Amino acid sequence: MEQRLSLVTLGVGDLDRARAFYRALGWVPHPSSPDSVAFFQVGGMVVGLWDRGQLAEDSGVDDSPGWGGVTLAHNVGSPAEVDTVIAEARAAGATISREPGETFWGGYSGAFVDPEGHPWEVAHNPDWRLDEEGAVRLPN
Amino acid sequence: MEQRLSLVTLGVGDLDRARAFYRALGWVPHPSSPDSVAFFQVGGMVVGLWDRGQLAEDSGVDDSPGWGGVTLAHNVGSPAEVDTVIAEARAAGATISREPGETFWGGYSGAFVDPEGHPWEVAHNPDWRLDEEGAVRLPN
Repeated sequence: MEQRLSLVTLGVGDLDRARAFYRALGWVPHPSSPDSVAFFQVGGMVVGLWDRGQLAEDSGVDDSPGWGGVTLAHNVGSPAEVDTVIAEARAAGATISREPGETFWGGYSGAFVDPEGHPWEVAHNPDWRLDEEGAVRLPN
Repeated sequence: MEQRLSLVTLGVGDLDRARAFYRALGWVPHPSSPDSVAFFQVGGMVVGLWDRGQLAEDSGVDDSPGWGGVTLAHNVGSPAEVDTVIAEARAAGATISREPGETFWGGYSGAFVDPEGHPWEVAHNPDWRLDEEGAVRLPN
C-alpha cells in the first residue's frame, strides 16, 4: 500500500448544517459533488462530508456517539494566523475546545470542534515547512 | 481558513502495534518523528499516530470507545489494485470490514479496519484522476 491518503470522509448528522459551516469558513464544495455529499479539493486530496450512518455502514463499522480517535489539523505560517483562524471558526459556529496558546512541542495552536463533533487543531509548527500552496513538508 | 488539510492524527491505544501495522503495509515513519509519535509524509500532508488519550486531551474532547465518524480512503488505479491492497492489509493484520466489490457509486472498493479501530476504504473511482505521484483530482 503506497504511503498516500486520498480522501478523508467526515460523517455528519446534518449535511446542510455541516456544509454551511465549512462554507462559512471559506471552503467551497466541488461542483462534481452529488447531492448527498460535499467534496472539497484540498491540495492533492479530498475531504468529504457524508451521512454518518451511511458512512458507518459503508466502512463496515458500528457507529458510537462522540469522538472516535481522529483529529484533523490545519497548519498556518504564524501564531497570529492561528488566532485569526480560531476567530473565524468561532464566528462560523464552532466550539473552541482549546484556546490558542503555546504548546508543549514548541509551537502555538488552538483547537475547535465542528458542529458535527469533529475536532480540528489550528497550528503553527516552526519546524514544519509550508510551501506556497500550503503543502506541509516534514523537516529534513 | 484556507481549503487545506495539513495533518490527520489517528489516536492509538498501542503505538508499537500501530507502527508495526503501518510498517507492514509498507509505510515508513519519518526520521523526524519523536519517540511518542509516528509521522508519515503523505504527499503534501502528514499522517500521525499518537496516544489516543493524549490526543483527546489535546483536542479538547472526551474520548468514546469505538468509531467516531471518520473514514480514510486510499484510492488506486484499478479494481485489481484494490484487491491487492486489501490482501496486503489482511496479511498485515487488519480486519477486512467489507470485501472488495462493485459499489453503488460506480466504482470498486473494499474496506479494512486497522488494529486501532480506524477504517480505511481502498477504492478505484473511475471518475477521479490520480496523477503520477498519487494525488487525487476531482473531475472538471
